[in-house]
Amino acid sequence: MNQLADIGMIGLAVMGQNLILNMNDHGFVVCVYNRTSEKVDSFLQNEAKGTKVLGSKSLEELVSKLKRPRKIMMLVKAGQGVDDMIGQLRGLLQAGDIIIDGGNSEYKDSSRREKECRDIGLLYVGSGVSGGEQGAREGPSLMPGGNHLAWPHIAPIFHSISAKVDGESCCDWVGDGGSGHFVKMVHNGIEYGDMQLISEAYHLMKVALGMKAEEMSLVFEEWNKGELDSYLIEITRDILKYKDSDGEPLVDKIRDSAGQKGTGKWTAITALDLGVPVTLIGESVFARCLSSLMNERANANVRLKGPSNCLYKGDKKKFLTYIKQALYASKIVSYAQGFMLMREAAKEYNWKLNYGSIAMMWRGGCIIRSAFLGDIKMAFDNNPELESLLLDKFFINATSSCQEGWRNVVSESALLGIPVPAFSTALSFYDGYRTKRLPANLIQAQRDYFGAHTYELLSSPGKFVHTNWTGHGGNVSATTYQV
Amino acid sequence: MNQLADIGMIGLAVMGQNLILNMNDHGFVVCVYNRTSEKVDSFLQNEAKGTKVLGSKSLEELVSKLKRPRKIMMLVKAGQGVDDMIGQLRGLLQAGDIIIDGGNSEYKDSSRREKECRDIGLLYVGSGVSGGEQGAREGPSLMPGGNHLAWPHIAPIFHSISAKVDGESCCDWVGDGGSGHFVKMVHNGIEYGDMQLISEAYHLMKVALGMKAEEMSLVFEEWNKGELDSYLIEITRDILKYKDSDGEPLVDKIRDSAGQKGTGKWTAITALDLGVPVTLIGESVFARCLSSLMNERANANVRLKGPSNCLYKGDKKKFLTYIKQALYASKIVSYAQGFMLMREAAKEYNWKLNYGSIAMMWRGGCIIRSAFLGDIKMAFDNNPELESLLLDKFFINATSSCQEGWRNVVSESALLGIPVPAFSTALSFYDGYRTKRLPANLIQAQRDYFGAHTYELLSSPGKFVHTNWTGHGGNVSATTYQV
Repeated sequence: MNQLADIGMIGLAVMGQNLILNMNDHGFVVCVYNRTSEKVDSFLQNEAKGTKVLGSKSLEELVSKLKRPRKIMMLVKAGQGVDDMIGQLRGLLQAGDIIIDGGNSEYKDSSRREKECRDIGLLYVGSGVSGGEQGAREGPSLMPGGNHLAWPHIAPIFHSISAKVDGESCCDWVGDGGSGHFVKMVHNGIEYGDMQLISEAYHLMKVALGMKAEEMSLVFEEWNKGELDSYLIEITRDILKYKDSDGEPLVDKIRDSAGQKGTGKWTAITALDLGVPVTLIGESVFARCLSSLMNERANANVRLKGPSNCLYKGDKKKFLTYIKQALYASKIVSYAQGFMLMREAAKEYNWKLNYGSIAMMWRGGCIIRSAFLGDIKMAFDNNPELESLLLDKFFINATSSCQEGWRNVVSESALLGIPVPAFSTALSFYDGYRTKRLPANLIQAQRDYFGAHTYELLSSPGKFVHTNWTGHGGNVSATTYQV
Repeated sequence: MNQLADIGMIGLAVMGQNLILNMNDHGFVVCVYNRTSEKVDSFLQNEAKGTKVLGSKSLEELVSKLKRPRKIMMLVKAGQGVDDMIGQLRGLLQAGDIIIDGGNSEYKDSSRREKECRDIGLLYVGSGVSGGEQGAREGPSLMPGGNHLAWPHIAPIFHSISAKVDGESCCDWVGDGGSGHFVKMVHNGIEYGDMQLISEAYHLMKVALGMKAEEMSLVFEEWNKGELDSYLIEITRDILKYKDSDGEPLVDKIRDSAGQKGTGKWTAITALDLGVPVTLIGESVFARCLSSLMNERANANVRLKGPSNCLYKGDKKKFLTYIKQALYASKIVSYAQGFMLMREAAKEYNWKLNYGSIAMMWRGGCIIRSAFLGDIKMAFDNNPELESLLLDKFFINATSSCQEGWRNVVSESALLGIPVPAFSTALSFYDGYRTKRLPANLIQAQRDYFGAHTYELLSSPGKFVHTNWTGHGGNVSATTYQV
């Protein structure tokens, strides 16, 4: 018999191919399978030429070529396809074998699949994989969760192929059930937020300051040297300086209609479901929805009133610094919200999440990788029970130092007529979060007025009372109905 | 045999009781049933004493006392209880009989139930009922949808008991499947938005202008005479002037932590699912979530930096007018977003919705009833195919006239450190909606850079291209994965 492979890989789309080559680089023997076997042949003859990668024409063949306990990673389209694949594999595998889903599955599906596999003796892992094609090839961020018995078996491979920052691997065991995919979902939501924040900064530079793409590229290059140092700022720099064949900036020619299906949306939905105010990701998803209404916007553009001039009249250099402060402070709020969401999910699903370790997983390899995540890791290292990132000393100083710019940018944008939904919602959240008395007392009074929903007094929390505000209510108090 | 009833009612919580008495007032004979029959006895001996309401001790008895086709309305807790009740009724009813769910069911459940009932010959109606206990008693807003064959049979009762405005009934047939509950869900979402907007106006008066509850009550009384004339403004007036037994305003003593489970949340989730930017309802739900974090807020209050003084320094009278403009313009945005959501749902589910008629259903009886809904009805009467409320002439003039105040309020609030998430998101939406070129081109470039997601050029929409932004990508273009 020939050499057995260390791991099997199902699915040869871009991410799968690159992960395989990455594993091969680190000395692991990978056996690949794809539904259309021509793709296997083509891969072995092209991208994988000269590697130790093995091919297989059937799942039976794949399984027969793997060391035990078998480790099979799937990178197939999320949804029914994953269940179908598990269904095919379960008849071929033996107790203790490991199935890893490296696709973008919904975390609830991963929780269910982990349980189903556990019931038949298989160890299931749902792993977030981030970093795009380049990350997969050179070192992705990996967020595995599921049956913890699988971890010792896959840890050597996962640690080897993952990104490293200062010698530390951007991969760690996340937790039980669907927690790996949950953390990946939040990562993607935060990615939506970061992209929206950068695009608002870009929009202000372009419209309020009248800057050209190349000038902006220099600004992002500069920003990338300080606290905003991150992959997304770096590629924004590259994008803004990229010239089309006619010498014009390519970015100016791209249609301003962004796609939004996927995990950004799920993050916002999950936040609503768990009752956590993850407003910045919500606004970012909605901003993409709005961008896609191009015809309506063109129509509204000529019909709706706004300020006649969008150019900022003050000190432009100062305003650039303000924009940077708005971006940095808003980013802190967004990450604080994301970690709030994970904290609530951990409570809800009884996961033990290590937030510092999650920050480290995102520190390198993935789309949101940044120096900033090192600061977050430090905050949780200092206090693993930290209630909110906003209450960490480093971040208190950071948001404090951004006050002038952040407030001015939101204020000026409103006056200039330039939409900054993410900067605004971040500031509203920050101000709401630090407000001792919000106006929700009025909302509670209204709910009690029209629906007898009862309310609590500040003096006696936990005790719900009803007031007959008008004098003509009945004597039945609302129980079942919410109006 | 005794007299047969016109309609049966299951469930004797506050809404059920009041709807029954309302039907009785209009000459309909109602037979009631409740799981605990003591409640039936008590109701007949108290609230329903001297009426023609009949009681029943079992579902069999209830069914036996109804005219054919039988019409049975349930007002029971949404969820499994509704399915259980349908399960019990189906064995007792005959083809052509009608089941009406008047609870707060999810529209997808109502769609499913309508189909299940249709398959066994029963006519199912999912009806939104709004107006709280008082509305139910004196004339609610009713939004019935489902099997249209039921409508002629229930229309006389529904039209009689519903609210009337200028002689017109605030009830009409909505459409197929779960459309009645969908429209009710959007109503509730808008209600969340309206309440948040009013509470932001209240917060600004209190904090930026230092006004007392009684002064504010007078302002709301004044506002209730103009374009903001509405039930929620009216009750806000009442609430602000309501004194506790010690002579102090009761509202000041209420705990500022608002509940948020329910249909407001569903509206925001549905908006995300359908890809419609219903930002104001989203922010309103999140604002309630944030309000509930009272301990964290108290902690943040002493630790996070903000402006040292929240008092507005300019002309206070003028600022009050500005707040009114911000409220009015934001409200227009919120309703425009709500109608966008219904339009998208109608496309998705193939419903024929009459938007003018929906505005009329909400015009009276329900929590969001207002003069404003008359303006909306007129907008859709003028153009049933109206793309967006924001593009109707009346509302173009309205938002146009609010520019100065709206922008100043958002701008000042940012500088004063007072959170106005709903006013801000409304303005961001308005400005985004009227922006011909949003910065989503940068987002598309980023997605193409890190994930080869491709993008469209302005010059050739519909054609997706990929750029090798760095020169070191592979030759596989992304298909399945979204990173």
